[in-house]
Amino acid sequence: MSVAPLKPGSAIGIIGGGQLGRMLAMAAARLGYKTVILDPAPEAPAAQVANRQIVAAYDDPAALTQMANLCDVVTYEFENVPVAAVEWLEARLPVRPGSKALKVAQDRLLEKAMARDLGAQTALFAPVATRSDLDAAMAVTGLPAVLKTTRLGYDGKGQARIVRPEDADAALQAMAGQMAVLEAFVHFECEVSVIAARGLSGEVCAFDVAENIHRDHILHTSKVPSALGPEAQTQALGIAEAIASHLDYVGVFAVEFFAVRDGEQHRLLVNEMAPRVHNSGHWTEAACAVSQFEQHIRAITGLPLGNTGRHSDCVMENLIGDEIDTIGEIATEKGAVIHHYGKAEARPGRKMGHVTRITQKTA
Amino acid sequence: MSVAPLKPGSAIGIIGGGQLGRMLAMAAARLGYKTVILDPAPEAPAAQVANRQIVAAYDDPAALTQMANLCDVVTYEFENVPVAAVEWLEARLPVRPGSKALKVAQDRLLEKAMARDLGAQTALFAPVATRSDLDAAMAVTGLPAVLKTTRLGYDGKGQARIVRPEDADAALQAMAGQMAVLEAFVHFECEVSVIAARGLSGEVCAFDVAENIHRDHILHTSKVPSALGPEAQTQALGIAEAIASHLDYVGVFAVEFFAVRDGEQHRLLVNEMAPRVHNSGHWTEAACAVSQFEQHIRAITGLPLGNTGRHSDCVMENLIGDEIDTIGEIATEKGAVIHHYGKAEARPGRKMGHVTRITQKTA
Repeated sequence: MSVAPLKPGSAIGIIGGGQLGRMLAMAAARLGYKTVILDPAPEAPAAQVANRQIVAAYDDPAALTQMANLCDVVTYEFENVPVAAVEWLEARLPVRPGSKALKVAQDRLLEKAMARDLGAQTALFAPVATRSDLDAAMAVTGLPAVLKTTRLGYDGKGQARIVRPEDADAALQAMAGQMAVLEAFVHFECEVSVIAARGLSGEVCAFDVAENIHRDHILHTSKVPSALGPEAQTQALGIAEAIASHLDYVGVFAVEFFAVRDGEQHRLLVNEMAPRVHNSGHWTEAACAVSQFEQHIRAITGLPLGNTGRHSDCVMENLIGDEIDTIGEIATEKGAVIHHYGKAEARPGRKMGHVTRITQKTA
Repeated sequence: MSVAPLKPGSAIGIIGGGQLGRMLAMAAARLGYKTVILDPAPEAPAAQVANRQIVAAYDDPAALTQMANLCDVVTYEFENVPVAAVEWLEARLPVRPGSKALKVAQDRLLEKAMARDLGAQTALFAPVATRSDLDAAMAVTGLPAVLKTTRLGYDGKGQARIVRPEDADAALQAMAGQMAVLEAFVHFECEVSVIAARGLSGEVCAFDVAENIHRDHILHTSKVPSALGPEAQTQALGIAEAIASHLDYVGVFAVEFFAVRDGEQHRLLVNEMAPRVHNSGHWTEAACAVSQFEQHIRAITGLPLGNTGRHSDCVMENLIGDEIDTIGEIATEKGAVIHHYGKAEARPGRKMGHVTRITQKTA
C-alpha cells in the first residue's frame, strides 16, 4: 500500500500539550506541517511552539469537533487520553496510532498478555481484584513481587512492593479498590528500551537500544550504546515488530525491558510499552539525523521512515524539579545539548528539561 | 563583566518573521525562552513556532511600544530593519546586536571601509554617485568590475557587471540614482564564510569555515569541511574577532570571503558581513551540538557561548522555489536532515527550505 504523504501545510492535531507534544510540534514544523494542540492548561509547553491551542478537556465534544475540522491527522502524546475521545475522532479522520494501541497500553494486564501471546518473555504475573486473588497470584509469582494498578500508573504511582506475605494487606489497600496485577520481582542486570516506528506501509525500524537508570521510579539517564551486545538489539527489534504488526500500529512507540543475564548473553523481559514518543528516546534528537519526534511525524503523515543511524555516543539526563536551575552551568559544557520544556513552575518530581551529552562514536 | 543570563521564561523579541526567525524561535524555545515576532505578514514562518506575533510594519510606533513592553531583549533576523526602529527600542531595552552593527551592514561602503581599516583585505573598490565617479572608480578597480547599490541589495539584486567601458552607462542606470560602489571582479578559487559569535562578556568563537557555491546569485550549497586548510580558519576567525570587537557586537554574525590562491596558501578577501544568523550556517543545526541559532540565543540572553565543535561532515543545500516539492524523495535518503520553512507559496527564487546531508567526520 502506498499512500501519498500529507502535503506540507497540512495540520497535525496533538492531544496533550506537555514536553513530548512540544518536541513533536517542533519536529512537525521542521517538515512544514502545522500543529493544533488540545490541552486544558493555557500556554501548555507544546502550545508555545504550535500554530494553535484548543484549551479544553480531552473529551470536550466541542473541542473534539474543532480538532476534527482543523486537522488532517491526529496523534497523542500520552497514553491516558480517554479512549472514547480517540474513537470519536477515528470515525472522522485518521488518528495515528489509533484506539487499539491505546486500549492495550492503558491496561497492564492486556499489555503483558499481549507480549506473552506474541512470544515475548515477561516477568511472571497474575491479575488481582480480591484478597484471595492476591494469595493465588503470590503462589504464581513468588516473593518479592510488585502489585500495580492495571490502569493510570506512571513514574511509580499506583505501585506497592510485597516482600513478605504480611505486606499483602497493605499492598492491596494501596490499590484503593482498583483492578491490579501482581508481578514477580525481576533480578535484572539493567533496564533497556527500544524506540521503534512503524510506517503507514508497514515497515518497522528501531533506534539503537538505550540503557536506562531510574531514580525514585522516574527515568534519570538513558545511555547509548547500552552495555548489551548486538543480540539484544535483534531481540528488541523482533519484539517491537511483533507488537507493532499485531496492533496495526502507525507511529513511534517504546518498549521497556528488563535485561536478565543468561550465561554470556542477556534475555529481555518486556516490562511495558508506551504508544508514543518516549523519554528514553530523547537522546535521538542530539545523536541522530532523524529524531524520534521527526520519525513519529514522518510515520503519521505517511512520509518514509527516516534513517535511525546514530552519529555520536550519548547520555541523556533528565532535569527534574529544581535541577533545571543548573542549566546555566550545563551550558558551559562541551557537547551538551540542552532542552528546557518551557514550564513555568519547577515542582518536585516534575520533568522540567533534559540534557544530552554527546561524545565521539565508539560502537 | 559578568551579567546573570536572562531567566528561562523571559521573552525575546525578533524583528522579522522569516525562516531565520523561525529557526531562532525554535532554538529559543529549546532553552526555555518565549518569543515575540514582529512581522507585517500574518502567520509568518517564525510566528508559527513563536509564542506571539505582532502583525505590523517594522517601524510602527504602537508595535514597537508593544515589543518594548513584552520583551526582555530584542534581536533581528535581517539587516534591512529600519535603524530608527532599532534606536528607538535601544533607548528602552537591550537590542542585540544593536544599531551600530546594523548601520554598517546596511551600507556596503561603510562595511568595506571598516574591513579595510581593521586590516582585512577586500577587493579594490570605490564609491560611485555620478558618471564621473564611475570613471574614476574604474581606474581604481580595473575591469571587469561589479557596480552595486550601497544599500538594500541581497541575492544579486541591485548589481550590474561592467566588463567593457561601454557597459558603464547601463550599469549606472541600473542603480536608479542610488549611491553605489564599484568593486573589482575577484578571480577567486572559492567562496567561504565563517559564522562567529560574540558573547556579552566579549568572548568570540566561530564554527568551522564553510565553502559556499552560489547559483543565480543565491546560495546553493555550503560544504564543511571546506577545501581550505586550517590557516583559512585562523585568518577568518581573526577577521571576525576584529569586526565583532570594533562593533561591540553581541550575537551571531557571518563574514563572507573570496578565497584567492596565493602559492600553496589562500588569501581571504572580505566580501560582506551579515549581522545575523546566516544561510551558510544552517549546516550547524545538523552537524553540531549547538547550532548557530542556539548560539545567537545564548549570546543575546547572556548564556555562555556553546561549543562550536562539529560531529559530522556535511553539505547543506537550499531548496529554492519548487525544489521544495522533492522533499518526499529527500526523506528517503540516509543522513538527510530536512528543514521546511512553512511558507505557503513556492515562488521562483524563494527560499522554501534546506536539506543538510551529514556523513562521517573526516577532517
